Amino acid sequence: MRKDSIPNKEVITTKPFPNSKKIYVQGEIHKDINVAMREITLSDTVDSFSGKKTPNQPVTVYDTSGPYTDPHKEIDVHQGIERIREQWIIDRQDTEELTEFSSNYCNQRLNDQSLDHLRFNHIRKPRKAKPGKNVSQMYYAKQGIITPEMEYVAIRENQKIQEAKRIAKQHPGQDFGASIPDVITPEFVREEIARGRAVIPSNINHPESEPMILGRNFLVKINANIGNSATTSSIEEEVEKAVWACRWGADNIMDLSTGKNIHETREWIIRNSPVPVGTVPIYQALEKVNGKAEDLTWEIYKDTLIEQAEQGVDYFTIHAGVRLAYVPMTAKRVTGIVSRGGSIMAKWCLAHHKESFLYTHFEEICEIMKTYDVAFSLGDGLRPGSIADANDEAQFAELETLGELTKIAWKHDVQTFIEGPGHVPMHMIKANMDKQLAACGEAPFYTLGPLTTDIAPGYDHITSGIGAAMIGWYGTSMLCYVTPKEHLGLPNKEDVRTGVITYKLAAHAADLAKGHPGAQHRDDALSKARFEFRWEDQFNLSLDPELARSYHDETLPAEGAKIAHFCSMCGPKFCSMKISQEVRDYAAKKELDEQQVLEAGMKEKAQEFKDKGSEVYL
Amino acid sequence: MRKDSIPNKEVITTKPFPNSKKIYVQGEIHKDINVAMREITLSDTVDSFSGKKTPNQPVTVYDTSGPYTDPHKEIDVHQGIERIREQWIIDRQDTEELTEFSSNYCNQRLNDQSLDHLRFNHIRKPRKAKPGKNVSQMYYAKQGIITPEMEYVAIRENQKIQEAKRIAKQHPGQDFGASIPDVITPEFVREEIARGRAVIPSNINHPESEPMILGRNFLVKINANIGNSATTSSIEEEVEKAVWACRWGADNIMDLSTGKNIHETREWIIRNSPVPVGTVPIYQALEKVNGKAEDLTWEIYKDTLIEQAEQGVDYFTIHAGVRLAYVPMTAKRVTGIVSRGGSIMAKWCLAHHKESFLYTHFEEICEIMKTYDVAFSLGDGLRPGSIADANDEAQFAELETLGELTKIAWKHDVQTFIEGPGHVPMHMIKANMDKQLAACGEAPFYTLGPLTTDIAPGYDHITSGIGAAMIGWYGTSMLCYVTPKEHLGLPNKEDVRTGVITYKLAAHAADLAKGHPGAQHRDDALSKARFEFRWEDQFNLSLDPELARSYHDETLPAEGAKIAHFCSMCGPKFCSMKISQEVRDYAAKKELDEQQVLEAGMKEKAQEFKDKGSEVYL
Repeated sequence: MRKDSIPNKEVITTKPFPNSKKIYVQGEIHKDINVAMREITLSDTVDSFSGKKTPNQPVTVYDTSGPYTDPHKEIDVHQGIERIREQWIIDRQDTEELTEFSSNYCNQRLNDQSLDHLRFNHIRKPRKAKPGKNVSQMYYAKQGIITPEMEYVAIRENQKIQEAKRIAKQHPGQDFGASIPDVITPEFVREEIARGRAVIPSNINHPESEPMILGRNFLVKINANIGNSATTSSIEEEVEKAVWACRWGADNIMDLSTGKNIHETREWIIRNSPVPVGTVPIYQALEKVNGKAEDLTWEIYKDTLIEQAEQGVDYFTIHAGVRLAYVPMTAKRVTGIVSRGGSIMAKWCLAHHKESFLYTHFEEICEIMKTYDVAFSLGDGLRPGSIADANDEAQFAELETLGELTKIAWKHDVQTFIEGPGHVPMHMIKANMDKQLAACGEAPFYTLGPLTTDIAPGYDHITSGIGAAMIGWYGTSMLCYVTPKEHLGLPNKEDVRTGVITYKLAAHAADLAKGHPGAQHRDDALSKARFEFRWEDQFNLSLDPELARSYHDETLPAEGAKIAHFCSMCGPKFCSMKISQEVRDYAAKKELDEQQVLEAGMKEKAQEFKDKGSEVYL
Repeated sequence: MRKDSIPNKEVITTKPFPNSKKIYVQGEIHKDINVAMREITLSDTVDSFSGKKTPNQPVTVYDTSGPYTDPHKEIDVHQGIERIREQWIIDRQDTEELTEFSSNYCNQRLNDQSLDHLRFNHIRKPRKAKPGKNVSQMYYAKQGIITPEMEYVAIRENQKIQEAKRIAKQHPGQDFGASIPDVITPEFVREEIARGRAVIPSNINHPESEPMILGRNFLVKINANIGNSATTSSIEEEVEKAVWACRWGADNIMDLSTGKNIHETREWIIRNSPVPVGTVPIYQALEKVNGKAEDLTWEIYKDTLIEQAEQGVDYFTIHAGVRLAYVPMTAKRVTGIVSRGGSIMAKWCLAHHKESFLYTHFEEICEIMKTYDVAFSLGDGLRPGSIADANDEAQFAELETLGELTKIAWKHDVQTFIEGPGHVPMHMIKANMDKQLAACGEAPFYTLGPLTTDIAPGYDHITSGIGAAMIGWYGTSMLCYVTPKEHLGLPNKEDVRTGVITYKLAAHAADLAKGHPGAQHRDDALSKARFEFRWEDQFNLSLDPELARSYHDETLPAEGAKIAHFCSMCGPKFCSMKISQEVRDYAAKKELDEQQVLEAGMKEKAQEFKDKGSEVYL
């Protein structure tokens, strides 16, 4: 086992994307809002006959990378990133800074000098709601208040493409009953949060996070799991994985650390995370009882919730739907219980022969959540772990319970979303979405894949990317990524990148299919660049410019090849796009479109084309 | 440009898969049929309390790898592989061996001594139907004849899982009107071929190929494109790519070579290919006129068809649906015409201002096809090359024409399948399938992807794997793979592997969703192995055992880790499967299932479990 180490500045990836600059869009209701986006500059379209240049408008894209890709921001991982939400929270005057942490365990760790070398350098005092106050975005929304967080996500969702949208034709989508407006307004955001159909995970102790929204009427989001396990990885690596995941497009991350020093690792991650951070508190609680599920108690768990809430975790996965009576339903399964949290709670229930303390103490948990605005991610502890177990009694019994719990959470104005499977064959995916919408009153759905077959370990980012794209289309709000290492080992940095990009493209495919306004803009811009052999633009508009460029350069590395009207796939004579361009250019030169060429039916045009053709070719 | 070189024996990959042996199932109607399959041997399930061992039955899987994975077969790439169909063809007595090749170009090449160093060593004389004979499988099927090819595919489709099927429960599928029987009989195969709903590509000059069937009522197949381009690759590499693609699961390959020495490259590939080989003859025809589309003639094209038919190409992609009148419909597209063949023909049509010679000579082409049993793959030259162009007028106009041509081909008893797109957002995929079924009388559909977004070059195996799985589910018979290099460059060997496995898993996901009988058997076996920590079995049952193993070993390389009840992903304490096993083992030991544990409601059981738990943990 490697020794833990704190992050070295050099390991953090900060360079901007090629031909991209960070832009900030100011709020209108809240003038101190500056929503970060990435603007990709494109080269001109050059007419191959006349040489006439036509500029291509820059393309603005959703940007999850935080300050790391802004060369004007100083990054010091030992200080943490800018706390953009701090003043908004203070201005609401419903919270107070505590003089010390409320969790016993947290204080123990802080006082343990043997941990000094691992500790984040600038730990701040936590904030908490003033007595009797509810500080959740849902509470504000129900009061009719548009918070800066709400305006932020409204601006962010629109991606500054109102202008582009007006000119872009795009295919009408099929949205299965969603209600996606043409332009997202702050008021629409508020309404959606008030009715529970959307969530902005935004713990008051994570002021560093740039607000993002989950909901079926918004862009589909993705989550990247990071975190070390007992057998591998260090704090340094995990912080870089967090920054790296955001760089490639993670809308939020979950820290699933289960090794030593979970508390310290989390502090480093949250202080440097520009996206919301989720956890599964039972993991740490289990470490506190040395891995003996049966020794878990409500008190230990509760202290863990408070510990993590005061560090700034934005949402907790809580497997409160794993009820005692459901455990036997898993006995005949091919793969039993495959959720870590679910299996821990099942073991506890059996060992004590008691109802789960997460279920029995659910309202107390709500009280904690609303004091910090931690959102529920109601865990699907009984999700199927194999195709055989998909959509079974245990899974759907738990889902019904999650629906009941959602209603209780909403009674407390606690923001809530629901976790979903797992392993499900394609034709059984839609039933999951439909049942979730019905059982949970349209609370956002957050699924892991689903994986559409079990037979491809090593490629489970793909088996699950298929299911993820489909369930995203059907209405899921957030897709939890799966990396190529799923079922086999802990993902490394490259696995994280592959997982994130796979899920980013799946989420985008879902947005296109739902007909999300403006979603097709980037596809159109990239395809136009492709057709015009603007190779650099094609790379820069893609989800992974580095990889696209490196694949191209593998066979044609010369700079000249970046303006060539072909690539190594077909070579110069066989490039369909080149031939197609020639057909078009010919028509353009004649000041005729192809329609006219044909309709005129003039034989001599054909002859001219032939003559012209002779010089177009090599 | 590299110098071409002929294959060196050493470059060909021949090793068997781990814990796998080649088995051969004999025919009943035709006793000289031996259908190759791969049998994967599994280890025993060991009860962790009693130590009792229960054997796991071996799993038989579909095997496309040919003799290369049979250690009992001598492989000599300079001789070509065994000609398993030769005697069947001779026995039908409707063909004759010609004294020389019929194609002028072929004879030119054979007489060109400067090519001797590149030439396949043992070129055989071609066979052709006797005058007036039709040697297509469709012709035989309509005559009520069950050929050895038909019985072969029937046995092959069943994968020897009739026994397994009887005990396996699997989810009922959703097949959108397909008619998939529980067991595939030779008579069913015959009926499906007779009515045009299935195709066995089986040129009489490619007796080396192991018959495989395409059709919506059979397992979904995949195609791998190989072949060099003018800028890269050698004959040696392409032959190894062919063998390599079959190894990983390609049901057939297309040789899309466009560089020099297309003729010689093809000979090497066909003589060593255990799967059907397709081509796009217009590519070679274009090389013959030095890349000038307008110089193409029917005579040059016809000579090319005969040249390739006598070498043994099993199907030809022919873009006969790109009619003059459709070309202008592409003028306003974002990406024009993106099919190489389509753009060549569009250029020819415009240059001559004439209807395509492929369309006007279609019946003559049918005459050639039925003389060798070459199947039509009616090309979609106007497929959309971007999301923006999906399902447009040009695309569907061409599809209607392909439907007309299908009827003409069937009149000649020529086996026919239809190519499909391309780039299509998820919600517009099903319309493609529905229209194809209607327009083309259920002739098998063969699609490229479709890609569900344009924004992920470098990951287009995934953007397209999503669409491929979906359209496979809807009824597509064969999925043409896309590699990570799509749009960027020529795929190398590793790209071929990634593309093949991605499409194999997509095809399998489609089989599961259609409810193909027995499809779930391998998933269930792998999931059971996973749950029981039979790591070796999990690797060996997967589509890519090497990669799965290497990913596991990256973090836990020790041999002992292959029997450990956890992996590096969660570590020992957090493995849900381990905890779930413990719950189950506990119940088993008490000779109670969990249901009874609970129902009995006995508190002391809980205490016992606690005690037991203490020693189970580390």
